[in-house]
Amino acid sequence: MMRPTHGGNLAWAATVADCSPASILDFSASINPLGPPSSAIRAIKSGLTDLVAYPDPSYYQLREALRKVHPTLTPDWIFPGNGSAELLTWAARELSQLGETAILTPAFSDYQRALKAFDANVRGYSLFGEGEVDSGFCFPLSTSALLDKLSGGGLLLNNPHNPTGLLFNRETLLPLLDKFALVVVDEAFMDFIPPNQDQSLIPLVQDYPNLVILRSLTKFYSLPGLRLGYCVTYPDRLRRWQEWRDPWPVNVLAEAAGIAVLQDTEFQEETWAWLPTARSQLFAGLSQLPGFHPYPSAANFLLVRYEGSCSQLQERLLKEKRILIRDCLSFPELGDRYFRVAVRREEDNQRLLEGLSLVVGY
Amino acid sequence: MMRPTHGGNLAWAATVADCSPASILDFSASINPLGPPSSAIRAIKSGLTDLVAYPDPSYYQLREALRKVHPTLTPDWIFPGNGSAELLTWAARELSQLGETAILTPAFSDYQRALKAFDANVRGYSLFGEGEVDSGFCFPLSTSALLDKLSGGGLLLNNPHNPTGLLFNRETLLPLLDKFALVVVDEAFMDFIPPNQDQSLIPLVQDYPNLVILRSLTKFYSLPGLRLGYCVTYPDRLRRWQEWRDPWPVNVLAEAAGIAVLQDTEFQEETWAWLPTARSQLFAGLSQLPGFHPYPSAANFLLVRYEGSCSQLQERLLKEKRILIRDCLSFPELGDRYFRVAVRREEDNQRLLEGLSLVVGY
Repeated sequence: MMRPTHGGNLAWAATVADCSPASILDFSASINPLGPPSSAIRAIKSGLTDLVAYPDPSYYQLREALRKVHPTLTPDWIFPGNGSAELLTWAARELSQLGETAILTPAFSDYQRALKAFDANVRGYSLFGEGEVDSGFCFPLSTSALLDKLSGGGLLLNNPHNPTGLLFNRETLLPLLDKFALVVVDEAFMDFIPPNQDQSLIPLVQDYPNLVILRSLTKFYSLPGLRLGYCVTYPDRLRRWQEWRDPWPVNVLAEAAGIAVLQDTEFQEETWAWLPTARSQLFAGLSQLPGFHPYPSAANFLLVRYEGSCSQLQERLLKEKRILIRDCLSFPELGDRYFRVAVRREEDNQRLLEGLSLVVGY
Repeated sequence: MMRPTHGGNLAWAATVADCSPASILDFSASINPLGPPSSAIRAIKSGLTDLVAYPDPSYYQLREALRKVHPTLTPDWIFPGNGSAELLTWAARELSQLGETAILTPAFSDYQRALKAFDANVRGYSLFGEGEVDSGFCFPLSTSALLDKLSGGGLLLNNPHNPTGLLFNRETLLPLLDKFALVVVDEAFMDFIPPNQDQSLIPLVQDYPNLVILRSLTKFYSLPGLRLGYCVTYPDRLRRWQEWRDPWPVNVLAEAAGIAVLQDTEFQEETWAWLPTARSQLFAGLSQLPGFHPYPSAANFLLVRYEGSCSQLQERLLKEKRILIRDCLSFPELGDRYFRVAVRREEDNQRLLEGLSLVVGY
């Protein structure tokens, strides 16, 4: 089986570790460990009776539920998809028509897939300064300078950025909206940011016809197996996408779960309460291990520079501890000196720290 | 709410009938009334624990289950999709590169969507002879002559044909494989044909690199809300499609249900036992109503020519009887003189016949 280019490939990990996928402790996919919320499971069970009918192709109820979470919008600005990956495909198709598309590197590998699918010209701009990859990098200091450098017809970036966890302030991004013909912002992890620190561009979308925002509902709500995301942009653009894609991309169980979890404020509060502390503790624990250098992150994952071989580290953790971390070999700019880990519950984070200690021999 | 261009839009029907979607008796979507099989529901419930992980992007287990149903294939010839509609999108992308694509009209409306999405040149060839639309048509007699006429780079047809229910014999289609650069056969309803009468081109796929077969698992197994289909074609083509589309189009619950139902021989036998009798009885009942002319069908639906206005008939049935039939306004060749009904259980078919009698005043 080929080494995966995305986290969460438990089938592959189980083969390497020679165990069942369920016995792997997965730090490779950046999924909220508190979920799925019971509201989602209840909604799916109730939705089983709807399997016999096609989904409502307008997804009206789901769009209504999303509108309530984004009070500046009306439903015609909202477009559910079969995971944000499906929506990325159509965004990339539009980007491909704009000459050059700028992306920040290291970049989520699926960006290249979607852009290549429509033969887009892609230009990467490194978040690292000269020589920083090996010595560590300090991107928060140079962000504005980096963003100034960007040019092209289209821009695809994510905020918070994956795999670094860097969060761009809304104000920092504003000039880009005047500079590019189309700006696609993947906010797949934005819902992990507590509302009072939210940097989403959704409140600006009505002022910028060239702005497309992609959101996921499966990372925060721990439902990556279900596939559910949405896009926010001008209604005209969404009507065009509707003519491109198949009529029922979201299945009825995902729709039911989505409607339920969007109203689950208890789960949301619990997640926002858990993350900052758990992340700080994991960050501190990693910092204390010799040779490990985690980077500050606003998201539910940490990028870590390690002075040894991360693919060997990954293999040993998997075989000896059944713990899966995300190697960064699919990010050519990072290679074997970096890995990424999700922030999980404290006891699991502790198991990771202990596993790392034992495997590297401290 | 706009009049739908596809069957099964219960949200629309419920608005017209002023009732809940669940209280509509739906003849508009051609879904097996015996399902969903309990094996599907059990598999989905068991699969709930897998929602927290991404689907296996290779969908190995599902492809293995499909391979067992198609013993001439190996898994690399099989490609699951988010309903056959998703796979149609990628097939249409390839067809669009071939000059002209031939389709048989009337044609399933989603063909136009998919082909237009990639600016394909489409040429329709009518199944009806001159003047036959109003007088009735007798396509089984002229099929070979029609197929002889077809030309172009690409061909997209379905077998059995929707909305007529016409089944092309395998041998009739063989010459087309030598004539066209790419032949896409949508076999969405082929599984309703008992195995001893099967006309699928799947056993030929290894001999024809220009052959693509689309299959659905949601019509026969009554799971249209779940979205699940697959494609059978040369592995090289599938590798290309894999690079185009998002990595996880099929959600884990659809995958689990698919694996379960493919092994549910009891449900399969039950369906093959039910359909011929129920279809004959519905055909006979419709034939006896003055002004109604059903066409012979090999599938689980009947196309009916009616001497009055079908859209008015549809509206009255919906408002007075909460019965939904499929108008054919979205098939420009058919217009207001045709409607389509699914074959359902005998008692429901009887309700339809009684509803029609009362509404048209016999």
